[in-house]
Amino acid sequence: MVSKNQIKAVAALHTKKNRQQSRHFIAEGAKVIGELLDAGFRLENLFVTEALFPKVDPSKKITVTEAELGRMSALSTANNCLAVFEIPPQKPIEQLGLIVALDDVRDPGNLGTIVRLCDWFGVKQIVCSMETAELYNPKVVQATMGSLARVNVSYIDLAAFLSETELPVFGTFMDGDNIYSETLPKNGIVVLGNEANGISSEVEKAVNRRISIPRFGNLQKTESLNVATAAAIVLSEFRRFEV
Amino acid sequence: MVSKNQIKAVAALHTKKNRQQSRHFIAEGAKVIGELLDAGFRLENLFVTEALFPKVDPSKKITVTEAELGRMSALSTANNCLAVFEIPPQKPIEQLGLIVALDDVRDPGNLGTIVRLCDWFGVKQIVCSMETAELYNPKVVQATMGSLARVNVSYIDLAAFLSETELPVFGTFMDGDNIYSETLPKNGIVVLGNEANGISSEVEKAVNRRISIPRFGNLQKTESLNVATAAAIVLSEFRRFEV
Repeated sequence: MVSKNQIKAVAALHTKKNRQQSRHFIAEGAKVIGELLDAGFRLENLFVTEALFPKVDPSKKITVTEAELGRMSALSTANNCLAVFEIPPQKPIEQLGLIVALDDVRDPGNLGTIVRLCDWFGVKQIVCSMETAELYNPKVVQATMGSLARVNVSYIDLAAFLSETELPVFGTFMDGDNIYSETLPKNGIVVLGNEANGISSEVEKAVNRRISIPRFGNLQKTESLNVATAAAIVLSEFRRFEV
Repeated sequence: MVSKNQIKAVAALHTKKNRQQSRHFIAEGAKVIGELLDAGFRLENLFVTEALFPKVDPSKKITVTEAELGRMSALSTANNCLAVFEIPPQKPIEQLGLIVALDDVRDPGNLGTIVRLCDWFGVKQIVCSMETAELYNPKVVQATMGSLARVNVSYIDLAAFLSETELPVFGTFMDGDNIYSETLPKNGIVVLGNEANGISSEVEKAVNRRISIPRFGNLQKTESLNVATAAAIVLSEFRRFEV
């Protein structure tokens, strides 16, 4: 049985303020929850509408009705399970291999897609400006499809971090060098900018390799690529020569 | 002045049924509306909360309050302008250059992102299965950022079309040939599958070049790439040797 107060407490985790105060977040659906459990995220409670997750400690598992799950869910149509996990403490940043830096990427869907993409391309570390969307926003958690269990996402003063790193710092700009003809290193930081404003002038100062994705449309009217699709193309270029 | 019935009629265009009956759709924001006007889409009405679009026929321009615009808008936060356009008749399919085929891509945001991406990479034709998201869904229109004005999107019996084309048909599969080592032609069709189920077995029969985007993550757990990010990588590979 689940109490009204319990439902309220879970639904409260839809807001950033409550997530930060309680240090908990929600994940929905068997795939995402399963990946977080496998990765060792600490489970607070698991709400299910049917028999699922036989290995989970029964004292943490609560059977609920679909209507109850719907009131806790952040999805427009609730799944058959919802878990509350502890937000783990930030791990130290590993300056190894390829790192993705996000300069105020605000859309939760974009952040989630980029985390999933980093997981695909073996990027283990993402560093985010403090204004970037929050990793534990339910929309981000869902869009990662469980990949947030395998990528370390850190929130820092991005301009300060980039000004001190010894790795080469790549940024995409309209006037950058054609990415298709550049020799790209195995180690480095790729900066992706805000959806509307691109890379901020403060962060731009730390960029020492300006790159660009060429445009092929005839009319030259396409304003820009979506940040997640630009990330896909840039990461693919960094990795393609390793095959 | 705008009447209650007029507001109702515009808001009705949020649903597919009403769009198809009236053959009209809505677009919001100065950028998207401006691109559609430039491309010759036929304007029915333009609702603005401030002085915008000085060149538009004043008899079609109606000044509204923010609250009125909010009631017509399909966005969570309305912009300062909303236009109602006629849905143009389907143009014939041009079997030239690179073509993208969508096999039941259901998410409006994904379709919009793919249209924008095709515009960037100079793809002029998208062919969609009948179950693919509808181009004139407000979420698609917004996600294209105006690119739908420059890409011809056609809805057809996709399996039948692909079985008859003389162009090579590419599809991404887990067991396909590594796309990074393939020689890709200038003319061809790239099939992208449904978000959950990939390419359907019927369409798969028409695929004669199976390709794959290699995975670099260590744990090999990442299930798949989002269809829009996969599209970005594949289109980039087709174009990179033309630079």
